[in-house]
Amino acid sequence: MAHIPLTDGAAGIRGLLNGFPASARPLADLAQALMRGPSSLSLGERELLATAVSAANGCHYCTQSHAAAARELLGPERAQVDQVIQARIAAEDRAAGASAEAPISPKMRALLVIAEKVRVAPRGVADEDVRRARDAGADDQAIHDTVLIAAAFCLYNRYVDGLATWAPPEPAAYAEGGKRLAAMGYVP
Amino acid sequence: MAHIPLTDGAAGIRGLLNGFPASARPLADLAQALMRGPSSLSLGERELLATAVSAANGCHYCTQSHAAAARELLGPERAQVDQVIQARIAAEDRAAGASAEAPISPKMRALLVIAEKVRVAPRGVADEDVRRARDAGADDQAIHDTVLIAAAFCLYNRYVDGLATWAPPEPAAYAEGGKRLAAMGYVP
Repeated sequence: MAHIPLTDGAAGIRGLLNGFPASARPLADLAQALMRGPSSLSLGERELLATAVSAANGCHYCTQSHAAAARELLGPERAQVDQVIQARIAAEDRAAGASAEAPISPKMRALLVIAEKVRVAPRGVADEDVRRARDAGADDQAIHDTVLIAAAFCLYNRYVDGLATWAPPEPAAYAEGGKRLAAMGYVP
Repeated sequence: MAHIPLTDGAAGIRGLLNGFPASARPLADLAQALMRGPSSLSLGERELLATAVSAANGCHYCTQSHAAAARELLGPERAQVDQVIQARIAAEDRAAGASAEAPISPKMRALLVIAEKVRVAPRGVADEDVRRARDAGADDQAIHDTVLIAAAFCLYNRYVDGLATWAPPEPAAYAEGGKRLAAMGYVP
């Protein structure tokens, strides 16, 4: 049971957004700007970063919600989603992490390393990490957006789990929400 | 040097907000809603929570900025600020943490424990932690706001440090900014 009463029965962050509209609006606007606004990262790449950070933070609701959105947006490359959930591309850029079915590009691998460092210990992001991302094609905007998306999911994950919100256990329950996020974004 | 070029020379999050206006607006709106909007927590209590979370996350810019704002807002109780920076009221509610000069109320002590758990491992916030806060006078809104403020500073701290922004080392450099935050809030 959640630590505070949430009357409408909506899962995860949705019950919180419905119950606390004053903070809901900037939280939704932030998600919309980061995840759907102008960026040099594709929508699928951004949802993949959100999924990886949420999985590493152990937030079931956020992981499954953004995994479902990423699968919608990545289309034929959707097997990358299971890879980032399972492998949790770590601070060490594990060469073994890329499977034959779902190759993750060198750019995304470098950005996933940066996102993981932001999640765990942000001062640990090294010039070398940034250089590797640049060499693989990431520009300033991509580096900025990766850091801010990773930071933002450290907020969303903590909001959802710190208040002990309810979430459906089974991944299939998130498929409809993933379609909605892919098609309509984050603003109600 | 920051990991991406920030041309205006502003310190900490300010250079990022100036350089990336699309995300700046919801980030500022969120801070304004959480730190200055309606709440059952006073402005000083909220700045104290922000200071404690930022100190424990090791973010010098955010710690000093919010410490300066908290000192303005807490007035005669401003010695609490140094206490939360130094003692980092931890997940264990250390009775030794309260000094004679700057008593931190049982309500704020209980909320600082919740904030620290949200920072480190949000699923660790226990019913018992919430009960202790309620017994000391925290209502649903205070518990919600504590969790969301702690989560939000896990974002702001990571944004500032993950991009290696510059920050003045000396605490005195933050005094003017603290007055501005106390008087005018977070919206430019």
